[in-house]
Amino acid sequence: MEVKPKVNGDLKDDDKQSRRPPAAIAGPTNPMVTPLLTDLYQFTMAYAYWKAGKHNERAVFDLYFRRNPFGGEYTVFAGLEECIRFIANFKFSKEEIAFVRESLSPTCEDGFFDYLEGIDCSDVEVYAITEGSVVFPKIPLMRVEGPVAVVQLLETPYVNLINYASLVTTNAARHRFVAGKSKVLLEFGLRRAQGPDGGIGASKYCYMGGFDATSNCAAGKLFGIPLRGTHSHAFVSSFMGPDEIIEKSLRSQDGSRVCQDFVSAVQTCLSKLKRLSILKGVFAETNQSELAAFISYALAFPDNFLALVDTYDVMRSGIPNFCAVALALNDLGYKARGIRLDSGDLAYLSCETRKFFQTVEKEFGVPDFGKTGITASNDLNEETLDALNKQASIIKKKIFGHEVDAFGIGTNLVTCYAQAALGCVFKLVEINNQPRIKLSEDVSKVSIPCKKRSFRLYGKEGYPLLDIMAGENEPPPKVGERILCRHPFNESKRAYVVPQRVEELMKCYWPGNTDKKREELPPLKQNRERCISQLEQMRPDHMRRLNPTPYKVSVTAKLYDFIHFLWLNEAPVGELQ
Amino acid sequence: MEVKPKVNGDLKDDDKQSRRPPAAIAGPTNPMVTPLLTDLYQFTMAYAYWKAGKHNERAVFDLYFRRNPFGGEYTVFAGLEECIRFIANFKFSKEEIAFVRESLSPTCEDGFFDYLEGIDCSDVEVYAITEGSVVFPKIPLMRVEGPVAVVQLLETPYVNLINYASLVTTNAARHRFVAGKSKVLLEFGLRRAQGPDGGIGASKYCYMGGFDATSNCAAGKLFGIPLRGTHSHAFVSSFMGPDEIIEKSLRSQDGSRVCQDFVSAVQTCLSKLKRLSILKGVFAETNQSELAAFISYALAFPDNFLALVDTYDVMRSGIPNFCAVALALNDLGYKARGIRLDSGDLAYLSCETRKFFQTVEKEFGVPDFGKTGITASNDLNEETLDALNKQASIIKKKIFGHEVDAFGIGTNLVTCYAQAALGCVFKLVEINNQPRIKLSEDVSKVSIPCKKRSFRLYGKEGYPLLDIMAGENEPPPKVGERILCRHPFNESKRAYVVPQRVEELMKCYWPGNTDKKREELPPLKQNRERCISQLEQMRPDHMRRLNPTPYKVSVTAKLYDFIHFLWLNEAPVGELQ
Repeated sequence: MEVKPKVNGDLKDDDKQSRRPPAAIAGPTNPMVTPLLTDLYQFTMAYAYWKAGKHNERAVFDLYFRRNPFGGEYTVFAGLEECIRFIANFKFSKEEIAFVRESLSPTCEDGFFDYLEGIDCSDVEVYAITEGSVVFPKIPLMRVEGPVAVVQLLETPYVNLINYASLVTTNAARHRFVAGKSKVLLEFGLRRAQGPDGGIGASKYCYMGGFDATSNCAAGKLFGIPLRGTHSHAFVSSFMGPDEIIEKSLRSQDGSRVCQDFVSAVQTCLSKLKRLSILKGVFAETNQSELAAFISYALAFPDNFLALVDTYDVMRSGIPNFCAVALALNDLGYKARGIRLDSGDLAYLSCETRKFFQTVEKEFGVPDFGKTGITASNDLNEETLDALNKQASIIKKKIFGHEVDAFGIGTNLVTCYAQAALGCVFKLVEINNQPRIKLSEDVSKVSIPCKKRSFRLYGKEGYPLLDIMAGENEPPPKVGERILCRHPFNESKRAYVVPQRVEELMKCYWPGNTDKKREELPPLKQNRERCISQLEQMRPDHMRRLNPTPYKVSVTAKLYDFIHFLWLNEAPVGELQ
Repeated sequence: MEVKPKVNGDLKDDDKQSRRPPAAIAGPTNPMVTPLLTDLYQFTMAYAYWKAGKHNERAVFDLYFRRNPFGGEYTVFAGLEECIRFIANFKFSKEEIAFVRESLSPTCEDGFFDYLEGIDCSDVEVYAITEGSVVFPKIPLMRVEGPVAVVQLLETPYVNLINYASLVTTNAARHRFVAGKSKVLLEFGLRRAQGPDGGIGASKYCYMGGFDATSNCAAGKLFGIPLRGTHSHAFVSSFMGPDEIIEKSLRSQDGSRVCQDFVSAVQTCLSKLKRLSILKGVFAETNQSELAAFISYALAFPDNFLALVDTYDVMRSGIPNFCAVALALNDLGYKARGIRLDSGDLAYLSCETRKFFQTVEKEFGVPDFGKTGITASNDLNEETLDALNKQASIIKKKIFGHEVDAFGIGTNLVTCYAQAALGCVFKLVEINNQPRIKLSEDVSKVSIPCKKRSFRLYGKEGYPLLDIMAGENEPPPKVGERILCRHPFNESKRAYVVPQRVEELMKCYWPGNTDKKREELPPLKQNRERCISQLEQMRPDHMRRLNPTPYKVSVTAKLYDFIHFLWLNEAPVGELQ
C-alpha cells in the first residue's frame, strides 16, 4: 500500500510527515482546480455563517450517490487523490478574494474577507473509501468534517472531482467486464471528450477501470499510462502512390543486410499474393495511395508496423496491401504487428481478415502470420462488445464470430454516452454533534443523518454480503456475531447476518488537527489493481449486465430507529380541514 | 466586431499586429492544453512523414461534423477562440520532446526530435466560421492549411476543443429556445460536469448559447459571466432554531432606523400569517431550523433575500417561513428577491406559491409581493421545460400552468445528457494541391475533397436558404444570379437558387505567413449576441423540436462532378468470379 508513485506530481511523504498534514502534497492535476472553482452560493452561505457567528461550528458532511449508473448494480469509486491534493493546497489568493468581494453584496463586511484570507484546510478531516473500491448507493464515499463554512466551500469541487471520475471508471470497468480478460482495451477518446481535461481524466480513470493503454500523450506523461497509436486515414490519403517514395532502403532486423529497394520488395510480394489461386476474386488492383502509405509507415517503424486498412476498401485493398508489406518485412526479419479496422461489419471483416492471414501463413510459410493482431475501433460501446462476443459464442467462430484481439474505444467510453452523469451529493449529517436530516417527498432523497462508520460484511464463500452503516459510537460488527441489518427506509426489509469477515470501509486520508495516521494515496497502478481485484471478488449475479441482483445496503437497528425519530421530529405536521 | 474583450486573458492587439500572427495572444484557458494533448498516432505519423521527407508538404484539412445533435437540425459553432489561443502559443518544451522520444520507437532518428523542437504554427493558416454562428453538417467549420506533419499534430486538440464547446452551446441554445425569451436561465452544472473544465467550459458556452448567468465562480472570474446563487439545504439544516441567533438587529434599507430584534419581528409576521383565515389549513407549525436559517440569511443579505424552500415541506413550512421573513424585511424597506424550488411538482408548487404570494400582497398590502420571483431547479432539461410551458398554455395558467420565472439547470445541460458527444472530424482534403478523398461503405462518411469555400445563400424573406460549398477557385455565387445547388452524394437532389444575399462563411483567423488580415476574436458577449441573433434569423421550421425541416447543404455542380470523378478514381474495382 505504501509504494510511492513514480509519475509526475508525486506525493512526497515520509513517516514523520504522515502523522500531520504535509505541505508537500502536489496540487490538483488541473491547475484550474482552485478554491474559486465552486458555486457562488458556497460563498453567500459562508458569509451568512460568518455573520451569524456560526462559521466555526463543527460540521460533518457525507458524499454519496443515490443510484448506480448504466443500469448496473455497482460503481467504482475514483477521484479521491485529486480531492486530497485540492485540500492540501487550499488557500485563497488576494486576487481571488477581491473577486469574491466583487461578486457578493457591497454590504458584506470587511471582516469576512479577512477571515477568507486566513482559512485553509488544516482543521478539516477527510475519511474516505480507498480509491478504486467497488461501492454502492447511500454508503458515504467520503466523510468531511470541519468548520461548517470551510467544508461548505469544498462541496462543489469535491462533488465535481468525484462524479465524473467514478462514472468513467465504472464505465471502463463495465467495458472490461464484457470484453473479458483476454482482450486488449485501448482508450481512444480524447477528441470526443467533454473538454481537454474530460479527455485527460478519462485516460486516467479508464486505465484505473481496467483499460490497458490510451492514445492520449498528455495523460501518458502525467500518469505513466502506456500509450498506443499508429496512423489515421489522413496519413493514407496523403500519399499519391509508391513513386513518391524516395528513400527506399531498409536494413534487416538483425542489422546484417540492407534491402536497397523495399518498395519493389513489397510490390513483388503483392504480385505473389495476387497470383495465389486461393485468393482469386478477393482483390484485383489495390489502392496505390494506400500501398505507398503502408510502405512509408513500415520504413519509419519496421519493428512496429500496424496499418489502418479501411480508407478505401478493407478486403479489396487494405488487407492485401498490408500483407504485401508484412511479407516484405518478414523477409527482413521483422514481424508486423497487425491491422486496425475502423468501419464496416467488424465481426465479418475480422473473420475474413483472419482467413486471409491464415492463407498467407500457409501459402508463404510464415509462422504465426495467421495470428497477426486485429484491432477494431468504430464507435464501440459496452453493448457492441457484448453483442460481438455473443455472436462469437453462438456460431463457434465459424463465419459470424469475430477475430478481434484489441478494441479501441472512444466516444461512448469517455463521454459515458449511455449515462453522462453520476449524481453524487454532499449532505450535512451533523453539526455541533447534533445529527441533521434533509427530508424530501421522494424517499430516496432523504439523507441518512449522523456521523457514521460503514462496514462491508463478507459471507462464507468470501463474497461481500452487504454494506452496513452504523453510528460513530456504536460497536462495530464482529466476525461470527449475528447482526440485524435494516434497509434505511423500508421497515419490512431486514436480515440477520453472521459475517465471516468485517471490513471497515472508510480510512483517514486527511487527519486535520487530529493525531490520526494519514492513509497514503496509492499510485494509479495500485488503484487499478485494487479495482480489478475488487470487481473479481463480487458475487457474479451483482455484476451481470441483464437484471443484476442489487447489492444490499443497510443500517444498524439503532441507526434505523434514530433516522425515523429525527424524521418525525423535523417533518411539519399538517392540519387537515 | 473589433471591441476588445475586457475579461481575464484578453487578446492584445492593434492594427499593425493584426496583419501578422501576434505573439501576444494569451494561451488556452486551460493550461493543460499543450502540444502534448494529442493522440500518439499524430507523432508516429509526423515521424513517418518526416522520414519520408514529406513533412513540409502543404496539406489542407477540413474540420466538420456529420449530424446535428439532439435530434435537431442546427448546431452552434463554438470553441474557435481556444483553438486560436492554442495555435498562437504552439511550441514544444524540451521536456515534452523527451517524453515523445521515450514514447516512440528507439529506432527513431534524432533529426526528427530536432525538427519537433523547431516547429511552431507560424506557417499554418486557419480559416473558420465566426464563433457563435449557426452551422450545419458537412460544411467546414474550420479549414486548416500548413505543413502536413504540423497540421496533423493539431487534429486531436482542435477536435477536442470544438466538439464539446459546440455541443454544449447548442444544448444551451435549445434550452433557451423552449424556455422563451422572458425566462431567466441559470447554469448550475459545475458539480455534475465531466471534470473541472467540463464545468468551466459549460459555464462559458452556456452563456454563449443564451443563458443569463452561472453559479460557477471560476468561470465568472475567467469570462466575466454574471454569477447567481443563494444557499443550499445544508445551510437550512445547519440551524437548530431561532434561539441560536445572537446578533438580531437589522438596520432599515434607508439607514434611518434599526430593528433591534429582527427575530421577533419575523415571528410576529409568522403569527399574523397563521391567523389569516384564508390560509387556514395550509400550514400549522413551520420548521424552526428552517426559520432560523432564513432569518440568518436575511440578516446577512437583507437586500438580496432568496430562500430555498423545500428542505422540509414547501407549502407547510418553506413558503410561510419565507413570507414571514420577507414581510419583516418589507417593514424595514427591503424587498425580498424570491424563493427556489428544488423538488416536487414544480408546476403545481409554483402555482400554489404564487397564490400564497398574492394572498400576502392583498392581505398585508405589500405592493408587488404577488410577483416575488420563483426559481425552479430540480433535474430540468429541454423536455421538462417544454412540457412545463405546454401545460401552461393549454389551461391558461389556471391550475396546472406554472409560475416559474427562472430556471436553474445543471446535469442535463452541462453533460449534454441527451447526447453526450458531437462527432466532429478533421479530414485531409488536399495535399500538394492534389485533392484527396476518404471513402467509406457508409456514404455519410465519405469526405468532400478539395480546398473549398462555403457560402450561405439568403432568400427573399431574409431567411438563409441553404449553404453551398465550392472549389477554392470557382467564382462565388452572386446576388440575383441563378445557381444550381446539388446534394454532394445524392444525384437526384438538386435545386436552382437565386440568392438575395450571399454570405461567405469562413474568415481568416490565423493568416500564417500570408499577408491576409487576421480576423479579430470577438469577446464572449459578442459571440453570445451573434449566437442569439443568428438563431433568431433562422426559418422557424428548422428550429422546432418536433420534426424540424433539415436545412439544405449543397455543393456546386462543378464540385459535385469532381467529387464523383475522384471517388471512382480511388475506389478499387472488384473482380466478380
